[in-house]
Amino acid sequence: MNTRVAVIGAGPSGLAQLRAFQSARAKGEEIPEVVCFEKQSNWGGLWNYTWRTGLDEYGEPVHCSMYRYLWSNGPKEGLEFADYSFEEHFGKQIASYPPRAVLFDYIEGRVKKAGVRDWVRFSTTVRMVDYDAKTGKFTITAHDLANDRMYSEDFDNVIVASGHFSVPNVPEYPGFDRFNGRVLHAHDFRDAREFAGKDLLILGTSYSAEDIGSQCWKYGAKSIIVAHRTAPMGFNWPDNWKEVPRLDRVDENTAYFADGSSAKVDAIILCTGYKHHFPFLPDDLRLKTANRLAASDLYKGVAWVHNPKLFYLGMQDQWFTFNMFDAQAWWVRDAIMGRIAIPSDKAALLKDVTDRIAAEDAGEDAHDAIHYQGDYVKELIAETDYPSFDVDGACEAFFEWKDHKKQNIMTFRDNAYRSVITGTMAPVHHTPWKDALEDTMESYLRN
Amino acid sequence: MNTRVAVIGAGPSGLAQLRAFQSARAKGEEIPEVVCFEKQSNWGGLWNYTWRTGLDEYGEPVHCSMYRYLWSNGPKEGLEFADYSFEEHFGKQIASYPPRAVLFDYIEGRVKKAGVRDWVRFSTTVRMVDYDAKTGKFTITAHDLANDRMYSEDFDNVIVASGHFSVPNVPEYPGFDRFNGRVLHAHDFRDAREFAGKDLLILGTSYSAEDIGSQCWKYGAKSIIVAHRTAPMGFNWPDNWKEVPRLDRVDENTAYFADGSSAKVDAIILCTGYKHHFPFLPDDLRLKTANRLAASDLYKGVAWVHNPKLFYLGMQDQWFTFNMFDAQAWWVRDAIMGRIAIPSDKAALLKDVTDRIAAEDAGEDAHDAIHYQGDYVKELIAETDYPSFDVDGACEAFFEWKDHKKQNIMTFRDNAYRSVITGTMAPVHHTPWKDALEDTMESYLRN
Ligand SMILES: Cc1cc2nc3c(=O)[nH]c(=O)nc-3n(C[C@H](O)[C@H](O)[C@H](O)COP(=O)(O)OP(=O)(O)OC[C@H]3O[C@@H](n4cnc5c(N)ncnc54)[C@H](O)[C@@H]3O)c2cc1C
Ligand SMILES: Cc1cc2nc3c(=O)[nH]c(=O)nc-3n(C[C@H](O)[C@H](O)[C@H](O)COP(=O)(O)OP(=O)(O)OC[C@H]3O[C@@H](n4cnc5c(N)ncnc54)[C@H](O)[C@@H]3O)c2cc1C
Ligand SMILES: NC(=O)c1ccc[n+]([C@@H]2O[C@H](COP(=O)([O-])OP(=O)(O)OC[C@H]3O[C@@H](n4cnc5c(N)ncnc54)[C@H](OP(=O)(O)O)[C@@H]3O)[C@@H](O)[C@H]2O)c1
Ligand SMILES: NC(=O)c1ccc[n+]([C@@H]2O[C@H](COP(=O)([O-])OP(=O)(O)OC[C@H]3O[C@@H](n4cnc5c(N)ncnc54)[C@H](OP(=O)(O)O)[C@@H]3O)[C@@H](O)[C@H]2O)c1
Repeated sequence: MNTRVAVIGAGPSGLAQLRAFQSARAKGEEIPEVVCFEKQSNWGGLWNYTWRTGLDEYGEPVHCSMYRYLWSNGPKEGLEFADYSFEEHFGKQIASYPPRAVLFDYIEGRVKKAGVRDWVRFSTTVRMVDYDAKTGKFTITAHDLANDRMYSEDFDNVIVASGHFSVPNVPEYPGFDRFNGRVLHAHDFRDAREFAGKDLLILGTSYSAEDIGSQCWKYGAKSIIVAHRTAPMGFNWPDNWKEVPRLDRVDENTAYFADGSSAKVDAIILCTGYKHHFPFLPDDLRLKTANRLAASDLYKGVAWVHNPKLFYLGMQDQWFTFNMFDAQAWWVRDAIMGRIAIPSDKAALLKDVTDRIAAEDAGEDAHDAIHYQGDYVKELIAETDYPSFDVDGACEAFFEWKDHKKQNIMTFRDNAYRSVITGTMAPVHHTPWKDALEDTMESYLRN
Repeated sequence: MNTRVAVIGAGPSGLAQLRAFQSARAKGEEIPEVVCFEKQSNWGGLWNYTWRTGLDEYGEPVHCSMYRYLWSNGPKEGLEFADYSFEEHFGKQIASYPPRAVLFDYIEGRVKKAGVRDWVRFSTTVRMVDYDAKTGKFTITAHDLANDRMYSEDFDNVIVASGHFSVPNVPEYPGFDRFNGRVLHAHDFRDAREFAGKDLLILGTSYSAEDIGSQCWKYGAKSIIVAHRTAPMGFNWPDNWKEVPRLDRVDENTAYFADGSSAKVDAIILCTGYKHHFPFLPDDLRLKTANRLAASDLYKGVAWVHNPKLFYLGMQDQWFTFNMFDAQAWWVRDAIMGRIAIPSDKAALLKDVTDRIAAEDAGEDAHDAIHYQGDYVKELIAETDYPSFDVDGACEAFFEWKDHKKQNIMTFRDNAYRSVITGTMAPVHHTPWKDALEDTMESYLRN
């Protein structure tokens, strides 16, 4: 094949794409030239931890939203690669909620084995993508940051895998400009120990709020107040943790809530979610979507309906992660390689999108949402040669996980689940999560 | 004139450019159409304070590097606009080291009076500039952030006034990835009270180190250690402040220095300077220069030698600020309007640059540097109709200021100087700087 494919981002989604093409080549297929642009100096996406916040060593926005002591917030049995099991990577089965470093190692293991590192141009950020209807090609303007050199190259297809949990959604509340403590977004949170002994206010009620609050609690925060805009999380929180209604305003050191209550706080952590942000895409190529399971304008959840030579990976909200990115990447590979036909009728593409949105909206609760996304994964896998696996079994792991969280939010990570890839049961981790202050890979694998 | 000029940035430099064109129009001249792109929602550049750090409400890098309680670090008599005095703006003479809010008001006063606000497209970031040698025009790709719309327009000239004290230079030292406290760059510093009672380590020995350290001291830090890479600042520091050699490494909570000493620290503030960073300029238009008085590749310090239809304002290191930006802006206006001829011989342009570099290098100390930059301001002013003023008098104010700092770094702001524009003496401020915890405009003007 004489075509060129650009992949933007070498996080789990982009790496899935590299592995998808490499696996076709390994089966003897002729594949396009694949060039992956990655602005960080290493791969792994959000899993590539850095102490940096704000802007990086090249003046570019820091991608990482992860922090020290972060453990998987869902069971690893829900995200295991079907073509590369945890047992294959670690030589044994491991416990179910691995810390970041362990999952980074696992993500990297598969692509190291695939030998695709030299497909990636590291420390290279994509500044602009243009499509020329006359030539039918995309021009990518990239900036080689280490050599401070900007250049352009043409591609037949572009796959955007730049993630959507990196650019913070940062609301302003009255008084933030007067508050004397630190006001930070979850994206800039790095070490819970910074907040030991402090009274914290957290805004937001989703995973970041729950996990950053739990981290701070574990590492010695004095008290935690979570204010909700819509509804409280409602877990059985420890005694020094409470949920309150909406934040009204703050002054120099006090937060005032919608129910008339108030509290002195030392720092405010905005766990208020992220934005789909593509500063490198012009209007005709740029996805605008809410963070939901059925994203806007993407046929089969991946092909840009307004120009299906452009694809997006991983742009949905995520119950399923790594294995869903795989399903998408294999499907996109096959669409590019002409094994899957994308309808030429735009109305058909648009109908696919509206049908998906309607199907998601018909669901009533998290249970339905998990099934909905599981079915999506099944649908894509069925059209490719990605190894099929027990997706319903993975859904079951998610249901158990949710029950375990409801039982006790500070112990749910002490449970173990069965792999849907190898069928083996995970060991119970040697130390309960709340007592495991040390979370290196060496320590975690000592099971 | 049927030409279009783009100004990138509405900080003091960009605003000087708008005022320069408006003043020509006020004198009856025909001026080009001027469009100023400003990514913030208001003008004032660095002086437009925000509590935000990292990325802003649109996911764009926060420009502001200023912080609460920041007062001018040099005497206002060194920066006064020759066409708009402090007395004209405030209706009286004011003390010599105004807080940020007071200077913001002053900067804004002149351009409000000029009536140029509708020349500015706010919340609009420039994403890319291209030059087409065939048409001789620049194409600017801008992103209207509020409406999330990207678009392109053509211009005859482009003036880059995007500042160079906004994108942090963030070095890494061994152990930063293990340190448990906050590691932040000066760019993200907002409120000294966050550090009350803490042991702080500061890296860097320039204005940010000096002033952020002084702020933290003033608002109750427990101790301050400043580590230097080259030489100590050598002021008479308070008892709980010391200077030490180069930082070697840190671990979870301790910093180790090149002389073998070590100290427990709670936070590390990197006052390590800024980068010239132009992600929106391709290689052939992008300035690469050290932070010095004679910048690279700029004829007369403003015209891009490789394509003198492109100009840069304020790219030098700064003793002179507002009045130097004015001198540059008036000169650039006249070059664009054909009143000043830029040599067509590139060798002449290059020679101008090397001569300036040599002249700066021939200077021996800060005294020479101040005179060097004063002479540069005089040189430009002499070629335009910018009101001439006593630049040497302004240099004298700088020399006195440096002496006052040497005498006592915590009281230098309690001095007063004479205006070189109106000739009046500034009053002494009603409260010594170190006791003035409140620094609103109302409070400062109550003299
Ligand atoms: C705090 C946090 C914790 C999480 N924890 C879990 C968890 O426990 N389990 C789980 O399954 N999922 C978790 N996730 C979800 C996460 O989204 C996925 O695991 C996964 O990282 C998504 O992969 P991705 O490749 O789509 O995006 P990312 O991981 O975000 O990778 C995108 C890549 O694109 C690069 N990039 C971006 N812009 C450009 C550009 N212009 N040019 C070049 N390169 C660019 C980035 O540098 C990055 O490497 C977590 C997310 C967050 C924010
Ligand atoms: C902490 C600090 C304190 C200082 N204190 C003093 C002081 O006391 N006295 C003094 O005289 N000087 C001080 N300065 C120096 C300062 O550089 C000048 O006062 C002045 O702000 C420089 O003006 P400027 O317009 O060149 O740049 P800036 O003030 O940086 O303005 C640049 C403008 O360009 C905009 N911009 C940037 N990129 C884009 C883009 N891509 N698209 C659209 N718009 C863009 C920005 O939003 C900003 O508004 C200080 C600097 C710092 C960092
Ligand atoms: N491994 C881990 O432990 C871990 C930790 C953190 C995050 N994550 C992952 O990171 C991803 C992002 O999660 P997230 O929690 O950051 O984002 P998210 O799921 O999108 O949640 C955003 C939250 O912010 C709230 N919010 C938005 N705007 C607000 C405003 N103006 N005022 C108050 N609240 C506001 C929302 O409240 P409403 O409900 O009112 O809209 C919601 O609770 C997920 O994939 C998650 O799994 C994983
Ligand atoms: N109004 C105010 O009060 C105020 C406050 C702050 C700043 N400002 C202004 O802001 C501008 C920027 O000042 P600045 O101090 O931020 O920057 P700066 O003047 O460029 O100084 C940078 C400092 O960082 C040091 N440095 C650079 N890299 C380093 C590394 N890897 N390790 C250790 N040290 C390193 C340099 O040390 P070497 O000497 O060893 O190179 C130097 O001391 C100036 O215009 C200043 O006037 C004003």
